[in-house]
Amino acid sequence: MGHGGKKMDFLIEFIANRIAIKKTSENALGVEAFDDGAIIPFANQNYNIVVTTDSYTVTPIFFRGGNIGTLAISGTINDLLMMGAKPIAITLALIIREGFSFQELGEIIKTISDISSKYGIAIVAGDTKVMPRTAMNEVTLIINTTGFGVIPPNMRITDSSIKPGDKIISTGTLGDHGFAMLAIREGIELETTLESDVAPLIDLILPLLKYRIHAMKDPTRGGLASVLNEWAKKSAVSIWLEEATIPVKEEVRIISEIFGIDPLLVSNEGKAILAVHPEDADKILNEIKRSKLGKKAAIIGEAKSNRKGQVLLKTRIGGHRILDKPVGEPIPRVC
Amino acid sequence: MGHGGKKMDFLIEFIANRIAIKKTSENALGVEAFDDGAIIPFANQNYNIVVTTDSYTVTPIFFRGGNIGTLAISGTINDLLMMGAKPIAITLALIIREGFSFQELGEIIKTISDISSKYGIAIVAGDTKVMPRTAMNEVTLIINTTGFGVIPPNMRITDSSIKPGDKIISTGTLGDHGFAMLAIREGIELETTLESDVAPLIDLILPLLKYRIHAMKDPTRGGLASVLNEWAKKSAVSIWLEEATIPVKEEVRIISEIFGIDPLLVSNEGKAILAVHPEDADKILNEIKRSKLGKKAAIIGEAKSNRKGQVLLKTRIGGHRILDKPVGEPIPRVC
Repeated sequence: MGHGGKKMDFLIEFIANRIAIKKTSENALGVEAFDDGAIIPFANQNYNIVVTTDSYTVTPIFFRGGNIGTLAISGTINDLLMMGAKPIAITLALIIREGFSFQELGEIIKTISDISSKYGIAIVAGDTKVMPRTAMNEVTLIINTTGFGVIPPNMRITDSSIKPGDKIISTGTLGDHGFAMLAIREGIELETTLESDVAPLIDLILPLLKYRIHAMKDPTRGGLASVLNEWAKKSAVSIWLEEATIPVKEEVRIISEIFGIDPLLVSNEGKAILAVHPEDADKILNEIKRSKLGKKAAIIGEAKSNRKGQVLLKTRIGGHRILDKPVGEPIPRVC
Repeated sequence: MGHGGKKMDFLIEFIANRIAIKKTSENALGVEAFDDGAIIPFANQNYNIVVTTDSYTVTPIFFRGGNIGTLAISGTINDLLMMGAKPIAITLALIIREGFSFQELGEIIKTISDISSKYGIAIVAGDTKVMPRTAMNEVTLIINTTGFGVIPPNMRITDSSIKPGDKIISTGTLGDHGFAMLAIREGIELETTLESDVAPLIDLILPLLKYRIHAMKDPTRGGLASVLNEWAKKSAVSIWLEEATIPVKEEVRIISEIFGIDPLLVSNEGKAILAVHPEDADKILNEIKRSKLGKKAAIIGEAKSNRKGQVLLKTRIGGHRILDKPVGEPIPRVC
């Protein structure tokens, strides 16, 4: 985290000053040291480390329900949780276009710091680059976050671990983030109360880790359809959904019909999809529903051994259709 | 590392196929799994973990001596080494402008993979975003790398650990990278043989860790002047340099005079500056000189207890001048 020039010092300190927790423990080294890297001591060896990295380029950077900062830290926390990991630390790399508002930058860093503080997840290292206007056009801020978490050595929650008979659970309504972003871009946000579902899922996911979860994924780019198609392929199962059981907000349904975009193909930023042992499914569903963010959770389908690699949707009018992965992103640059 | 659409799958697989080592060990989970994160098992607890993150936006992305990929992986490896850490794993996040050449992308990934393979450092997780031409202008590729390394629990090589009497060592000539980039931009690269010094310093640094190194830093943005001013301030010492002992290539000296830019303020990408216990200085210097990248190493100064926070340069013509940090970056966007 070399500073370089004095003008850059000011900017880096402006950011660092707004980060509340800068290191994981008393004897650690973090952002407060402005050094080349951070030191994360661990007390014992009964864990493995999980890392995840993501760049965020969302447009616009402020939206109803959050901003690019909420998205970056929540997305990284959720990616760790999806592996069954307890999030510990995050690195924060910013690419800022010349002339970017300090007021907005402060607000974004505060969002990140607030979530970091709430869950005791340290921002341990950072990097800042400023780009001239000739280099970046519409984009004024890009954030990369890399996250670190710990899991027990024998835990493996992966895309390829689903067994026939597993129940598929959605922790809530689908399509909220993608359609909230679409509403802003199309200038119809005042006609709706729809907001992004962006949120870290720590309180919802950590209590579930005692159950037999085989796979877990946050349905971001490509939505539910993308998650389930990856699972079906990697686990060599088919996944059968019942459309009537899939939670979708009425507003999302209306907007999706206006624009002809399937909510199951659209990004979510505060939801998880789980594939779980059938005997644990009801217990897990009840536990999710006790969480503030899980009120609308539902069992939406199950895995089977025939028609390997396919995702099939039983529609409301009866009959099945194949739910394929989207070819492109129906609503681009939402994360 | 969710894939999203099928078009994106192709791109991610194009990249992943060119990465040779995708996980840290047999029972690990890495890029090969295309999952949300990577699992890095550790065999024992006799270490701490070091993490570092950097975004690379260099222009042009190919230059004499390397490309943006060489820069990203070397920079991240070197940042870990500067903490005394043994690099273990790296995450790789790419932001690619629409229409970027696959041939060039392949070449860049190969560069990264080759260095990763040579030193057994796994690329454990990744992320790829594609940006429309309306969003990014001159910039066609941005790379973020986050690195993980391990150090013994009691090791602390930090900016604030320098003691009066410590000797300052440069592992080689200064200014090569910055002036090589300047030469390309000014269209005079054919007049020189100057190339970037970009390189991972693993073979040079790891054998030194048995000695009493108090501080160590790669003089990238802001060059030697920036490193030493940060050290002087954080360690509350003065640092006295002898200009005649500082290794600078004749070509760099000539170009620096033409453009009126001090080589001591300019970025290096394959050098380290060390502050070491005086009794170990000669042993460390000899060990550095045994390494392929350390032939031009020299003791260039020492730390003193008076004039705390200042860096003073004894010039060739006698007398001392204060060597301040640069206000801005003399040669911008070189990393």
